[in-house]
Amino acid sequence: MGDAGAVAAVPGHVTGFFAAHPDPDPRVAGSTGAGVTLTDGVRVRVTPGERGCTLDGRPTEITAVDRVLDALDATAGVRIESDLPVGAGFGVSGAAALGTALAANAALGAGRSENELVATAHAAEVRAGTGLGDVVAQARGRLPVRLAPGAPGHGRLDGVPVGPEARVEYLVFGGLSTERVLADGTERLCRAGATALSTLRADPTPARLLALSRRFAAETGLMTDRVARVVEAVETDGGRASMAMLGDAVFAFGTALSDAGYEPGVCRIDRSGARLVAGDAAPVDAGAADGHA
Amino acid sequence: MGDAGAVAAVPGHVTGFFAAHPDPDPRVAGSTGAGVTLTDGVRVRVTPGERGCTLDGRPTEITAVDRVLDALDATAGVRIESDLPVGAGFGVSGAAALGTALAANAALGAGRSENELVATAHAAEVRAGTGLGDVVAQARGRLPVRLAPGAPGHGRLDGVPVGPEARVEYLVFGGLSTERVLADGTERLCRAGATALSTLRADPTPARLLALSRRFAAETGLMTDRVARVVEAVETDGGRASMAMLGDAVFAFGTALSDAGYEPGVCRIDRSGARLVAGDAAPVDAGAADGHA
Repeated sequence: MGDAGAVAAVPGHVTGFFAAHPDPDPRVAGSTGAGVTLTDGVRVRVTPGERGCTLDGRPTEITAVDRVLDALDATAGVRIESDLPVGAGFGVSGAAALGTALAANAALGAGRSENELVATAHAAEVRAGTGLGDVVAQARGRLPVRLAPGAPGHGRLDGVPVGPEARVEYLVFGGLSTERVLADGTERLCRAGATALSTLRADPTPARLLALSRRFAAETGLMTDRVARVVEAVETDGGRASMAMLGDAVFAFGTALSDAGYEPGVCRIDRSGARLVAGDAAPVDAGAADGHA
Repeated sequence: MGDAGAVAAVPGHVTGFFAAHPDPDPRVAGSTGAGVTLTDGVRVRVTPGERGCTLDGRPTEITAVDRVLDALDATAGVRIESDLPVGAGFGVSGAAALGTALAANAALGAGRSENELVATAHAAEVRAGTGLGDVVAQARGRLPVRLAPGAPGHGRLDGVPVGPEARVEYLVFGGLSTERVLADGTERLCRAGATALSTLRADPTPARLLALSRRFAAETGLMTDRVARVVEAVETDGGRASMAMLGDAVFAFGTALSDAGYEPGVCRIDRSGARLVAGDAAPVDAGAADGHA
């Protein structure tokens, strides 16, 4: 990566349970539920004057990223580096959209607020059909609880308090089609998601989040065979794991997956949400004496 | 400090401009406005089974801290270490209240959500009369904008995007009485605060936040003589600084104060908001197989 432009870091996000709330307005649409943000995630560099999008060096097209650039009236190149696989339930497309929004705003001086940038990325992701709740969760960090669906101004978030030693393990087998699951009749799914949410609100702890995710995965029939085998092996070992919604993937806290003999990806719970990490535009003391105001 | 209990870190917070919104309900009361959260702040250790409150090792009484412990039904000792002076506009009492809420919840397994803990600390601080907007800002981090007053569920926040190299300098001469300023007729103050807020929303940048803070301090007549002398010296030097509301103190971005020949306190803009930093209770994988759910 060169030095031009601005760079944002966005955590990965695994949803444990959810209820979909479609709406014709993509800022109103979204999901309720709860999940885990990860220090493994994406870094997005936006470079004005360039064009095209790459993922880990290879040309790619991510609809939500294009929509963000359009919404910000930005012509720029977008270079994405990801610790996580795309389409496997880790919110990589949402992270790419949110990182593009934050970095493009900084690189181009677009003059949007944090809420406006999150809303832009959320709407882009919803319209692309690749996610409903990742972006708002990734903006908050830690263990985000989506109390009400939608972008800032519509949705409402809370969080499960979490300590600093918050190790996450995960195993990825492959992807699932978000569109197909959501098209496949979501009534039972939404009922299960709403029940899990109200139970978590009565006892907001990481252990309860994981246990409710496990129950949700079983009750909704979303668990794949490979995920079920891992979850059961972990439980036989005295641990707890659940499925990344929506991917053919498993997540757990602590060392539950390695204790059961797997060789998982390892990271920690993200502490701060999406953020700018470098950029040569809009330094904090720019224009200190520019005569404005 | 011993190893028992849980520890929270909470950023300091300087308000640049504000409008007060009193209300009989302390969760509805609050302020709108904008400010800067600081990596300089407080660390709060809560130890179950102990009693009393210390600040940097000396016994002290902080009403908002006592109210938080009462609200959480907690009997515990509270040890506060602060990088910043109390009562000088850096939100130390709000930080102490918020840190107590987060750490007590973890140490005692009180089972509250992040929003509930922020609301508890906000209400305690409002009822103690020591602040109106610090707690919600300190929970968010970065450059918080208070769009609507009050605790989570009532208030609304946004943020000014800020890059990673966000150095803050500050000088402290002493304190101002929050109660006296707020009692002293707040109509002009609130009008000036509302104007600054809508101007910032049209151009949410750190430089604009600082310039609007400077104008607010002058227009409201709140600037002390010592603050005015520093601000003018910095401006003569081509920089920008403003007053910490409400303290006899100055803040600036970058190296504006040192460039003008002062020897300021130096820190950076906080990146993540209040957070647990250590604690032996409620580890993230506790109770993984406890049979719940």
